[in-house]
Amino acid sequence: MHKVAVIGSTGYSGQELVDILLKHSDVELACVTARFDDSPKYADIFPRFKNRTSLCCEKLDVEKISKTCDLVFLALPHTVSMTVAGEFLKKGTKVIDLSADYRLPMDKYREYYKKEHLDKENIPKAVYGLPEINRDSIKNANIISNPGCYPTSVILGLLPIIKDISLSESEIIVDSKSGTSGAGRKADLDLSFSEVDGNFKSYKENVHQHMPEMENILSKETGKDISINFVPHLLPVKRGILSTIYVVNKANLNQDQVYAKFNEYYKNEPFVRVINSKNMPQLKDVVNTNYCDIGIRVVKNVIIIVSAIDNLLKGASGQAVQNMNIMFGFNEREGLF
Amino acid sequence: MHKVAVIGSTGYSGQELVDILLKHSDVELACVTARFDDSPKYADIFPRFKNRTSLCCEKLDVEKISKTCDLVFLALPHTVSMTVAGEFLKKGTKVIDLSADYRLPMDKYREYYKKEHLDKENIPKAVYGLPEINRDSIKNANIISNPGCYPTSVILGLLPIIKDISLSESEIIVDSKSGTSGAGRKADLDLSFSEVDGNFKSYKENVHQHMPEMENILSKETGKDISINFVPHLLPVKRGILSTIYVVNKANLNQDQVYAKFNEYYKNEPFVRVINSKNMPQLKDVVNTNYCDIGIRVVKNVIIIVSAIDNLLKGASGQAVQNMNIMFGFNEREGLF
Amino acid sequence: MHKVAVIGSTGYSGQELVDILLKHSDVELACVTARFDDSPKYADIFPRFKNRTSLCCEKLDVEKISKTCDLVFLALPHTVSMTVAGEFLKKGTKVIDLSADYRLPMDKYREYYKKEHLDKENIPKAVYGLPEINRDSIKNANIISNPGCYPTSVILGLLPIIKDISLSESEIIVDSKSGTSGAGRKADLDLSFSEVDGNFKSYKENVHQHMPEMENILSKETGKDISINFVPHLLPVKRGILSTIYVVNKANLNQDQVYAKFNEYYKNEPFVRVINSKNMPQLKDVVNTNYCDIGIRVVKNVIIIVSAIDNLLKGASGQAVQNMNIMFGFNEREGLF
Amino acid sequence: MHKVAVIGSTGYSGQELVDILLKHSDVELACVTARFDDSPKYADIFPRFKNRTSLCCEKLDVEKISKTCDLVFLALPHTVSMTVAGEFLKKGTKVIDLSADYRLPMDKYREYYKKEHLDKENIPKAVYGLPEINRDSIKNANIISNPGCYPTSVILGLLPIIKDISLSESEIIVDSKSGTSGAGRKADLDLSFSEVDGNFKSYKENVHQHMPEMENILSKETGKDISINFVPHLLPVKRGILSTIYVVNKANLNQDQVYAKFNEYYKNEPFVRVINSKNMPQLKDVVNTNYCDIGIRVVKNVIIIVSAIDNLLKGASGQAVQNMNIMFGFNEREGLF
Repeated sequence: MHKVAVIGSTGYSGQELVDILLKHSDVELACVTARFDDSPKYADIFPRFKNRTSLCCEKLDVEKISKTCDLVFLALPHTVSMTVAGEFLKKGTKVIDLSADYRLPMDKYREYYKKEHLDKENIPKAVYGLPEINRDSIKNANIISNPGCYPTSVILGLLPIIKDISLSESEIIVDSKSGTSGAGRKADLDLSFSEVDGNFKSYKENVHQHMPEMENILSKETGKDISINFVPHLLPVKRGILSTIYVVNKANLNQDQVYAKFNEYYKNEPFVRVINSKNMPQLKDVVNTNYCDIGIRVVKNVIIIVSAIDNLLKGASGQAVQNMNIMFGFNEREGLF
Repeated sequence: MHKVAVIGSTGYSGQELVDILLKHSDVELACVTARFDDSPKYADIFPRFKNRTSLCCEKLDVEKISKTCDLVFLALPHTVSMTVAGEFLKKGTKVIDLSADYRLPMDKYREYYKKEHLDKENIPKAVYGLPEINRDSIKNANIISNPGCYPTSVILGLLPIIKDISLSESEIIVDSKSGTSGAGRKADLDLSFSEVDGNFKSYKENVHQHMPEMENILSKETGKDISINFVPHLLPVKRGILSTIYVVNKANLNQDQVYAKFNEYYKNEPFVRVINSKNMPQLKDVVNTNYCDIGIRVVKNVIIIVSAIDNLLKGASGQAVQNMNIMFGFNEREGLF
Repeated sequence: MHKVAVIGSTGYSGQELVDILLKHSDVELACVTARFDDSPKYADIFPRFKNRTSLCCEKLDVEKISKTCDLVFLALPHTVSMTVAGEFLKKGTKVIDLSADYRLPMDKYREYYKKEHLDKENIPKAVYGLPEINRDSIKNANIISNPGCYPTSVILGLLPIIKDISLSESEIIVDSKSGTSGAGRKADLDLSFSEVDGNFKSYKENVHQHMPEMENILSKETGKDISINFVPHLLPVKRGILSTIYVVNKANLNQDQVYAKFNEYYKNEPFVRVINSKNMPQLKDVVNTNYCDIGIRVVKNVIIIVSAIDNLLKGASGQAVQNMNIMFGFNEREGLF
Repeated sequence: MHKVAVIGSTGYSGQELVDILLKHSDVELACVTARFDDSPKYADIFPRFKNRTSLCCEKLDVEKISKTCDLVFLALPHTVSMTVAGEFLKKGTKVIDLSADYRLPMDKYREYYKKEHLDKENIPKAVYGLPEINRDSIKNANIISNPGCYPTSVILGLLPIIKDISLSESEIIVDSKSGTSGAGRKADLDLSFSEVDGNFKSYKENVHQHMPEMENILSKETGKDISINFVPHLLPVKRGILSTIYVVNKANLNQDQVYAKFNEYYKNEPFVRVINSKNMPQLKDVVNTNYCDIGIRVVKNVIIIVSAIDNLLKGASGQAVQNMNIMFGFNEREGLF
């Protein structure tokens, strides 16, 4: 049985990875790491894991981990992953990186993450881990750049129609709303319950670092220079992203035609559900699942696409495990039902 | 001192009206009505009013109320207000109607509210009670049609720039998010805590009944045929509406220019705050106030306007009292600080 | 492979049962019922089940179901289960009843549920399905009366010390707090988001129908006449019950002694976790799990026990599946990890 | 007109004070302080105050403030207030201290706040600012020690019956639940939305620093040595405290008798409402008000008292203004309606 490790196991994505991997029938979670001096039991830090694992939280030791593990998940902060990934690759250990470090071309990375990239060698080798477009390359990849949460919801919501020339030239508006866990596990006044409960706000309007990721992937897929207007908002919920996408309907498609394109595009996908036309996606239907639900309304002069995911699952850890399942030849749904 | 009544006092807007009017220095709340057989004390129905009022909830008696009250607030359901307003007007009692009954031209009313209008006589007399555009007409009106909650947030967000020809011809996208109290006080599975908490969804995408109200008013103001794409969403919060408005920047304005237009337009308005350019509106800053906060971002090719109100105050009862203050010549902020 | 059915599959417990049973490796969910005329697809009613099941929601047909299913879960309202359970038992189909219908002696049932019991024959045959006290009887039972949510949290919190004579004679105070899903899936103004969010209240203070259930079981277990003071409260959360239990420390036990009793009592239990003495239970650690977490503080003159469960899992559907696992000789954790 | 200042104006109590004082008809808010180097506008820090005040946030300057202000509110952290209060008193400026610094006898202060008290001179002069017991002393006080939030809810819930000998000797259990704003405005992982939403937990079980405050005041009032068992819990709401108080009914009072005692005790109190016997207090009825609502149930062998307040108003800033109103001879309800 393959052994795997979660590097950076105390954030929200790290915890979700541990949760999924402990349920997974085909791999063994052999190691979890975090920066503690005294190797505490993981279940002592997070009591919800009591009776489920006796693993202790080790310090990161690439040498040691690469000897026992075939694959590591990096649930590290941006700009930290790139200092670690290469070392694992050198030892022959496969890497699935959940940070943004391998998602962007160098110049865009510098512009949006305000750092020079430190692992130029591996950027071109990293496969963007969105199975719906890259399943074949994922199979043989040694390093996966796991997509961002917003980009997953937006790219899946646009893929089936964006290659249409007239639509790709439209002004595209993406109004996204995310739960608080997307901001990570940290002490931050702006994320405190007293500030967030009952509140709602936009942020980083049209300057969010996930915007170039969407544009980069959509441009690659279409061969055109796709531009997106993207405004994220902070929802008073823990989990979930719902993106409302507006595309001016220059191709004059009707609702049935748009549905047909989506149904055709995703007909074999295990984790994308095109919702029937009576309903629209809701966060509650995707939270705690690896699904991306998509609904469509064509009214007046716009195509409205609503796309919903759990930001910690299809938007992070669930998708990472889906990628691992593909890399190891497992049933793609294993651990994720 | 003027005496006023709240007709339909048990819904959320009705309760807010009672709350404001009990604090108001220049009027006396003389009567509250609702459909009870036994005239219960208002404070027994809503314990939060204990020690604040000894009023009992009477059945509606136009004859009696019009004798003592100079003005009535109708916080009745749509299609009910129009059966009552005319009777009060005949008796010389001024009316501020919080329902949608006098907001639309007859044909649009029929189309969106699925009823034939029953008071054609008074539709043309009703003044649309948005002080920011109709203050002078409000002063002398006998019947005010109080604006809808979504339209208040959207119209105030567009007014300062919509007369610009190139912008008014743009595709306008309005992505609004509302708290649950906007749906009224009622037993409804879809509004139950177990369904709404942690959830988020869109509804009535581009077919909501408030859309023709926005288009009607904006078209009147501009003299052009304004079309809006409007998608409302249900937020897991009790109060507040935040609308994110996207206008393709065909006039190529920069952020300072757009700010200047807004600051100029609202410079004398007591309840519209154009937020300084470092911040953007948040629900928490307007909830429990009568303010509409507006923020602007001009990035890439779109003008992004964010507008936030408390749906029960500036979006309903607060605005109704603001209208009354104007009609009676009071300080416009009285009761609303 | 055993086939099972969920009778009454559209409430919250019903949905949880469907969710667990679809993941269960050792049984097949063969039928779900509800009162629809047109047999809709279960996944059309609840889109979160799309791609997971193609079952349609049938009307209840005991004859038909008993032919294919070895066991049925009754997730029906109180007073309805007792009209159905007997029919299944006659056909040789095992029954796990999640309602309160078989939990109380006849006289207490009449007093608290205001109905004469209609299935006196099967009351004495029903085994109270709390594995921690009745595992052996559950193995051979044909009808299980699945415990109430509050009683599960309270009984598990008291069992290890209640047999102590001096403690059992103490005044026992139970202050419980439950999420809204405990009230069921229904349209009810008092359960609407606008009323519940930001709110908190007690209800049925010392007169709740779950109180005699606790007293009945604890009296049976101790052979004494145990009386409980029980005040439930409604929390603004969807899921979870946390009970704070106060027992006057007449036996003068210290914290280590009380911990030792709990650890000993539950040492082999798969789903009861006695939390280490640095921490206390929190809802977030048990929600979406079948665990009951218990923490203890002995300070001043009282023993304080805090017990937390997910009301829909260990407090209802999870425990029901745990009971099924025991009845069928499966791994007790199957489907529940 | 009296001028007042808020020292420490950026916490939640500070903001509430500013909000109330800006509405107050009889005083002028002349100064707000906080530790900024650049004296920012208060409304720039907290946009909800835009259009309401042009005050800037000054650094604390006792000399300067005492020249213009007759009274200062200290909304400073515990252990900081005691370094400032004496200086104001020396200048003849009255002080209302919202911290815990003047609430406890020296030895208890040291035990629970882990610091030696630095202003022994003024401890005996400080009047405990609970108007319901100390109105006359408050009138003439120069320094008010404003009660804690939990103690306000608990003391008001016990006062009318605690002098009864048999009850005062009972085991008293207080199970309190507080919203997050009680913990103050700060960056703290345990108070982040992602951790608090959907969660519920107890903390500081029978060791909370507010327990000796309750015992101290109740002992003074009764002349006996009152002991309280006190377990606070953290509610996923922003504002409000609800305390459920259990007193073993050794005096064998019935519900009417207990109600009569409460009604008599509070008959002239403007801000304590004894709820009629059909209802019980709910947070939503007191949040955003200065009321304390109290309800009673006498069932079985215990008297159950439920007491609810807004922790930031009757539990802090509202009560502070009530105290100021008494000190200055204003209408006690002014600013607090």
